[in-house]
Amino acid sequence: MGELLFIGMGLHDENGLTLRGLDAAKNADTVYAEFYTSIMPGLSMDRLRHIVGKEIEILTRKDLEEDAERTIISKAEKKRVALLIPGDPMSATTHVGILLSAKKHGIRTTVIHSASILTAVSGATGLEGYKFGRTVTIPSPKTSPVPESVYEFIVANKRIGLHTLALLDLEQGGLAIPEAIRILIKLESAKRTGLLSEEALVVALARVGAPDCLVRAAKAKDLVMWDFGEPPWSIVIPSRLHFVEAEALQILAGAPRGLLEGRE
Amino acid sequence: MGELLFIGMGLHDENGLTLRGLDAAKNADTVYAEFYTSIMPGLSMDRLRHIVGKEIEILTRKDLEEDAERTIISKAEKKRVALLIPGDPMSATTHVGILLSAKKHGIRTTVIHSASILTAVSGATGLEGYKFGRTVTIPSPKTSPVPESVYEFIVANKRIGLHTLALLDLEQGGLAIPEAIRILIKLESAKRTGLLSEEALVVALARVGAPDCLVRAAKAKDLVMWDFGEPPWSIVIPSRLHFVEAEALQILAGAPRGLLEGRE
Repeated sequence: MGELLFIGMGLHDENGLTLRGLDAAKNADTVYAEFYTSIMPGLSMDRLRHIVGKEIEILTRKDLEEDAERTIISKAEKKRVALLIPGDPMSATTHVGILLSAKKHGIRTTVIHSASILTAVSGATGLEGYKFGRTVTIPSPKTSPVPESVYEFIVANKRIGLHTLALLDLEQGGLAIPEAIRILIKLESAKRTGLLSEEALVVALARVGAPDCLVRAAKAKDLVMWDFGEPPWSIVIPSRLHFVEAEALQILAGAPRGLLEGRE
Repeated sequence: MGELLFIGMGLHDENGLTLRGLDAAKNADTVYAEFYTSIMPGLSMDRLRHIVGKEIEILTRKDLEEDAERTIISKAEKKRVALLIPGDPMSATTHVGILLSAKKHGIRTTVIHSASILTAVSGATGLEGYKFGRTVTIPSPKTSPVPESVYEFIVANKRIGLHTLALLDLEQGGLAIPEAIRILIKLESAKRTGLLSEEALVVALARVGAPDCLVRAAKAKDLVMWDFGEPPWSIVIPSRLHFVEAEALQILAGAPRGLLEGRE
């Protein structure tokens, strides 16, 4: 009997795998990995192959978005096929689609969860995990025009007291934090709700889950001046802050005290 | 030099630990665990002690919420102290507070992330992880009165197209799924926004991340009739559905096809 396993690799490097995930990968007949939905800057394919004890083939976006039937689903009819995925394995719609296709073929599927930026962001910033609204992705203007919906979702979250995590485009070298903030400020100057001005508090994050993770809270216009090092990058646009959240942003993210007054 | 490590144990059992988390626990001088912020139904303390290779003391809510200074922070001034926490380790405000206290004492802190119900819910249901709004907790009426804010947060999420994850109280045997749904229907009949009637689509989840995880999507009034087995339990109140989400709820959660028409 075949099986298709979606195994989360968590954050940063191969040590983000859970014990359950590693065990499942070891017991699979064939192991694939993909790194186009996110990147894991500390991961070494040699070390990953070594701990799993098998050859691991890397699949591309095209392999999974256009050819999943051929690349993995048909193989999973008779064999145990594992797909290693950065973060928690079901964050991308593509993977949900592949799982549903496999189910329609009568193939057994298993999802093995691991850490994701979607929850790790609250540990890194001290912002309450329960208070995040819709997550947005800011595309690089090199890849596609930035839709106004990015701005509208952030404002809609903020209006009902929710923080927004904005993931930054990874394609073509990635959208840098200063560039992303400039895009938001530009959208604000077109829309003028006043909720996302250059005076607004923004938290910038680089390499969450890595030993050299960097988290910095400041006014939007000041973050534009910083260098955050290597990706992955994301930003958080906080809404109203609980006093523990305000204190956390000072201690964990170096927020200037004056900046937080009146935002609690 | 001391250090305080917050290590996520992920979902279900000790195999939810990441390789990074296990390694850190092995290298700690003293290891504690807590299970009051969530429960891990498959976890065996004997197996956990065996894989970590050390004695592990279980701390209570009181130990951490009132006596953290004495129980762990003062010890972390000179030793490496690890606290094992279900899920992703920074989901509870208590843990953020302890981390900030440790930082104020000049103690080095490390957070090691793992899987959390907050993101695993999208893998279990096929609902898009990016489209969840504020998470709510429904208290058991045995413990405390159910605040109207629970209802208001769900409605506020739904109005802007966001799904809501509602975690159910774990104290005193826990709040069962049918009881939680009855509470929501009762709040609706007082508030009458029409957004959470007994005809509304609700997804019930038991034991996410476990091999016997159960996920069931149906009308609120029909879910009241089901038995979901052992906790942990949660429910999702979906907002508008993308067609892939609607298909996922049919395939993964047995949603009746007719129920989804017009909700996409």
